[in-house]
Amino acid sequence: MYLTVTTSILAAVMPAPRQPIEIREFPRPDLAPGAALLRTSRSEVCGTDVHLWHGRLAGVPYPIIPGHVSAGVLESIRGRLDGLDGHLLREGDRAVFFDVHRTCGACRACTVHRTPTRCPSRRVYGITDSAREGLFGGWSQAIYLEPGVGVARLPDRVSMDDYIGGGCGLLTAVHIRERAALGPGGSVLVQGVGAVGLCAIALCRLAGASTVLAVGDPASRLALARQMGADEVFSLAATTAEERLEAVKNRTHGEGVDVVIEAAGSARAVEEGVTLVRDGGRYVIAGHYTDVGASTINAHHHINRKHLEIRGCWGSESRHFLEAIETLEAHGEIPWRAIGARTYPLASLNQALEDAEAMRITKALVDPWA
Amino acid sequence: MYLTVTTSILAAVMPAPRQPIEIREFPRPDLAPGAALLRTSRSEVCGTDVHLWHGRLAGVPYPIIPGHVSAGVLESIRGRLDGLDGHLLREGDRAVFFDVHRTCGACRACTVHRTPTRCPSRRVYGITDSAREGLFGGWSQAIYLEPGVGVARLPDRVSMDDYIGGGCGLLTAVHIRERAALGPGGSVLVQGVGAVGLCAIALCRLAGASTVLAVGDPASRLALARQMGADEVFSLAATTAEERLEAVKNRTHGEGVDVVIEAAGSARAVEEGVTLVRDGGRYVIAGHYTDVGASTINAHHHINRKHLEIRGCWGSESRHFLEAIETLEAHGEIPWRAIGARTYPLASLNQALEDAEAMRITKALVDPWA
Amino acid sequence: MYLTVTTSILAAVMPAPRQPIEIREFPRPDLAPGAALLRTSRSEVCGTDVHLWHGRLAGVPYPIIPGHVSAGVLESIRGRLDGLDGHLLREGDRAVFFDVHRTCGACRACTVHRTPTRCPSRRVYGITDSAREGLFGGWSQAIYLEPGVGVARLPDRVSMDDYIGGGCGLLTAVHIRERAALGPGGSVLVQGVGAVGLCAIALCRLAGASTVLAVGDPASRLALARQMGADEVFSLAATTAEERLEAVKNRTHGEGVDVVIEAAGSARAVEEGVTLVRDGGRYVIAGHYTDVGASTINAHHHINRKHLEIRGCWGSESRHFLEAIETLEAHGEIPWRAIGARTYPLASLNQALEDAEAMRITKALVDPWA
Amino acid sequence: MYLTVTTSILAAVMPAPRQPIEIREFPRPDLAPGAALLRTSRSEVCGTDVHLWHGRLAGVPYPIIPGHVSAGVLESIRGRLDGLDGHLLREGDRAVFFDVHRTCGACRACTVHRTPTRCPSRRVYGITDSAREGLFGGWSQAIYLEPGVGVARLPDRVSMDDYIGGGCGLLTAVHIRERAALGPGGSVLVQGVGAVGLCAIALCRLAGASTVLAVGDPASRLALARQMGADEVFSLAATTAEERLEAVKNRTHGEGVDVVIEAAGSARAVEEGVTLVRDGGRYVIAGHYTDVGASTINAHHHINRKHLEIRGCWGSESRHFLEAIETLEAHGEIPWRAIGARTYPLASLNQALEDAEAMRITKALVDPWA
Repeated sequence: MYLTVTTSILAAVMPAPRQPIEIREFPRPDLAPGAALLRTSRSEVCGTDVHLWHGRLAGVPYPIIPGHVSAGVLESIRGRLDGLDGHLLREGDRAVFFDVHRTCGACRACTVHRTPTRCPSRRVYGITDSAREGLFGGWSQAIYLEPGVGVARLPDRVSMDDYIGGGCGLLTAVHIRERAALGPGGSVLVQGVGAVGLCAIALCRLAGASTVLAVGDPASRLALARQMGADEVFSLAATTAEERLEAVKNRTHGEGVDVVIEAAGSARAVEEGVTLVRDGGRYVIAGHYTDVGASTINAHHHINRKHLEIRGCWGSESRHFLEAIETLEAHGEIPWRAIGARTYPLASLNQALEDAEAMRITKALVDPWA
Repeated sequence: MYLTVTTSILAAVMPAPRQPIEIREFPRPDLAPGAALLRTSRSEVCGTDVHLWHGRLAGVPYPIIPGHVSAGVLESIRGRLDGLDGHLLREGDRAVFFDVHRTCGACRACTVHRTPTRCPSRRVYGITDSAREGLFGGWSQAIYLEPGVGVARLPDRVSMDDYIGGGCGLLTAVHIRERAALGPGGSVLVQGVGAVGLCAIALCRLAGASTVLAVGDPASRLALARQMGADEVFSLAATTAEERLEAVKNRTHGEGVDVVIEAAGSARAVEEGVTLVRDGGRYVIAGHYTDVGASTINAHHHINRKHLEIRGCWGSESRHFLEAIETLEAHGEIPWRAIGARTYPLASLNQALEDAEAMRITKALVDPWA
Repeated sequence: MYLTVTTSILAAVMPAPRQPIEIREFPRPDLAPGAALLRTSRSEVCGTDVHLWHGRLAGVPYPIIPGHVSAGVLESIRGRLDGLDGHLLREGDRAVFFDVHRTCGACRACTVHRTPTRCPSRRVYGITDSAREGLFGGWSQAIYLEPGVGVARLPDRVSMDDYIGGGCGLLTAVHIRERAALGPGGSVLVQGVGAVGLCAIALCRLAGASTVLAVGDPASRLALARQMGADEVFSLAATTAEERLEAVKNRTHGEGVDVVIEAAGSARAVEEGVTLVRDGGRYVIAGHYTDVGASTINAHHHINRKHLEIRGCWGSESRHFLEAIETLEAHGEIPWRAIGARTYPLASLNQALEDAEAMRITKALVDPWA
Repeated sequence: MYLTVTTSILAAVMPAPRQPIEIREFPRPDLAPGAALLRTSRSEVCGTDVHLWHGRLAGVPYPIIPGHVSAGVLESIRGRLDGLDGHLLREGDRAVFFDVHRTCGACRACTVHRTPTRCPSRRVYGITDSAREGLFGGWSQAIYLEPGVGVARLPDRVSMDDYIGGGCGLLTAVHIRERAALGPGGSVLVQGVGAVGLCAIALCRLAGASTVLAVGDPASRLALARQMGADEVFSLAATTAEERLEAVKNRTHGEGVDVVIEAAGSARAVEEGVTLVRDGGRYVIAGHYTDVGASTINAHHHINRKHLEIRGCWGSESRHFLEAIETLEAHGEIPWRAIGARTYPLASLNQALEDAEAMRITKALVDPWA
């Protein structure tokens, strides 16, 4: 049915910041009880991988095998593997997994504050797991799913390319939409048309938003933003902030949108975002995954008098992972796969990083068997 | 039982920004059906009145009779007057009223967005009502309660001085506490120990907070903050931001407090506030009633990664007014009246404004019959 | 452009419970400032009208002109008419209005408890307004829109038939969906496939539900339920409660659905509903508009141990009215008009009531000019 | 400093339903890494223990050592023990623990639905843990705290008697109060004056409720209800349901209370509760820990038209445990210890069960070293 993973597994390793990616050989791992080996069909190169390459994230245990969100086929399972989706998983199943693992479920962040994405024990495949520990990343022919990792069946009607096209951006966007509390009939503006922003556009549309606007560049991504569901898009380069504000007011009874979602990762976006949301609205800030500098806000005009809510949004929880799968299954009409314009073999991942950084692609798909 | 309001009523009028307050005589108004005349027992001079005097609020229809929150005795009622508290009001009753009126209940802010404090029709006694229209302010021997104003009986056990000691600061603080969603057992830090901050301290304590901290000056207000319920107070002048951060972390398992409440009206307070709240916590910004300049925030460190919620809080709704009365009735042990250190007659209100501005007093009480 | 309403207006009047509907002539009303006259294009005969005909609602001031939700063209406006949707309305505009009026916005229900649908001043066109007062119902060639009624433009792309096909059922369903707090990816079962249930099915689907199930009869309505978006339907007559429970569990990992919506108006439905929802789920009860007797529930098994939430849902607010319009505008692909299978002239409304009661039609459309 | 636990530990064992309690000897357990041994100072006999004795709970692995909530001194710790309260625990510390353990933090109930009290892996000391596994109950001189159990320091100012006086009833009541969403100024009626009801009364009062009413019997408990903070109490035997309804309406502007809390465990209480709550209010059902039969409710009058919310409340989470400790520390003025009227040695626990069942005591305290 599928190529068997042999005793020798190839993976692309990021040895240290700003060092070229290297192909290394790993032994086939022994499985602990409850563990599984996933033969990787697709992984991705996303904006976080570019940050990793530049060493912009603190505490990364280089060398690492990047690739946090991935999909594949269960090659081997030791013991019983219950899916988070309620299915019993079997060898040969098409499967995906929640890249965040080892959230403890017992610390104050997990239990008292109910903020599991701030759990200090939390680890993420492809980011905080060292290649010294084994196959903990998707840029590899196989991934070690340690016991306790949240696994789910990939529904038949969801292609591997659609799953990875959504990828980590979709998981983040599911959390964003929840945090935005956007209901049917609401209006929303998304800042940024990278993978997160594009997925947020689609999810807001699917959640029944009456108006979905987007701001960003370049033109190719704005065109994709329309395909994902945006009613109108604004080029950051070709319009001024004043023009955007006026256009937004014109579409919203002079009020501003109910919700602004920041997925741009720009300090200037934050300063503009507070002007575009209506009084009593919500502003979700989700694009500042790394430090890009300070924003200047007038607390009287933009927060206090406006009765505004600003909500940071960090990471995702396993229920967002499940909701992402359900969304992909129910909405094959959305061009998720178009977010990942090109598919690279392991040998071309240095090129993929360069293409992503140059914004030639929104994200790269990785096929480790190509 | 009480002095009768005669045909001639004295009121203190603010003719224009930076002009001295003048005593003027007004005729006893005719009452429309459903209206009432309140013989004023106590009104107040608060920080907003100082702002009004300096012309810092937009759209004020000078000349005005200041004094938004007031208490008195119902001198005359035309027709039936049902209290918002469920009581039928009668002439001779001790009564108070919600200073916000003409909220339309029909516009998009009122109905669709459920943000009545942003209703464009909303007016406020003593602030947005011109003296040309009549007795719409508390610095007067009598106040015209037009039909539709929310009136309530002042419970027997609440003194006029306690009601005005709480005053507009208490109404604002009730909304703040609701917006803060502070539950029993939570930890909170209040920035600012003016009338709003002091009331917020008391309300957080009464709502079951396990830890209540306060930052501000001068020493006399910090002492009052302790009486209102603060566990520990920090002098802004005598401590550094680093010392305050360390002290807060020490009291909160190294996390920061669950909730920070900004009632300081300082752009620097906003910058410090985001560092004092824990990951996943809430920051209510309520002190920026006027524009005091911009704040600089790092969206990565202080909002996104922190999974923080920042909530502006503007004005109050009538249910906050009722909750304020219920709180005063239930908690006579709190020294509400101590917030209003001194009582001034109408003739001394220029002095009262100067004393308030110089921070010699937190707020002034006004006795228009003294 | 359209037929002018002359000085004599025909309306169908329900003189008293169980009396035949009569056609009466009304004079063209004088308009108060802010009022308007709507030339009725479509109104409806819904289940509530059948209840009215049988005298099952308390306090109805017969004679009445039934027809609560209606659509038409603005024949005449006195003064300025601002739409609740932010548009300025003009004579000749296609327009609709929120049938609930005179909600006071000032009483304890409106302000303190924020439950405007329980406001004692609240009145409803076609139900609580007497024909003695004038044209307060849609079974008439024209409707008097008194000052303060919430009016909105009917968007160009929404047909009169689609608007009334949704009608009062859609307004109720918008409130239900909000109350159900159903998010994307959730599972839902709707009890009842009348106008409310059918609209709830569509709204849950549009809100991103992953699974939408429905229970009811007859077969024609179940077929329509599928067209509105149901994944699977169960005939109440052709399946047992045990079979339905098993089928629901099979589709939901053995858990039950996240949300059950009761739109059946049956005491037995309530008893079944609590078994079909998962632990920690929500059960919205919205079909018991009249008293159909008592239900028997085991508080241990069905509420306490289940950590269940049961939420009654009464009436609608104006924001639900606006959301209904936005939904109709955005989702013309839904066969709203199919809910109203047949269109009746005023002269045939006795027949329409009989057809509705016999469940030959889900609802009737009324064309008072036919 | 304290008596050392020797190699032989005495515990009171419930061998099977309706069998007398027996004293048995257990060996001192070996500690796994991260485990601890708690020398029991106080445990309790509560209503659940009476249910256990009668075999009314399903799936209990008799023989068991009852006693779910307990307090003691840490006799021995293997490795490091971090408290859920942020403290590092040391041998000799006064300590308490969350009786619910092995909640998995990974299943659908824990992660997707966020209902950890419905986690199928969840176990409870003294209830679902067999004596065959060791010292998993408080009716014992020592308790084995397995790795992962949530432990916290008992604050110096909280006595063992106050902690157990609150006990499991307080933990349940903390969850109830959260679920009730009772804010300052609200009105509440508590049905039942057992340990849960008494604690709920105190918590509602501490949360700022303006009106706290209670219904129950016998007179001694009603007297204690007043001491816990009830404004007015109604004897179930000495008043009729009509009288209670009238009294409640009289105190609440004719509306009914904002919140009713059911802590009575009676099917009749449920039927009465829905009449006592106001339109748009909330009814928390928390007393139906076991099946006491069905209740009859009219969905039109009591749920739908009333726009009511009914919320089941099952078990507690660890944050409720922490909040209970913080409440005890902050509010030593509440007579928590008075809930546990009498202290029994291990040898008298058959008598304690009889006394509890006969309602001679609200709960019993257990001193296993007496």
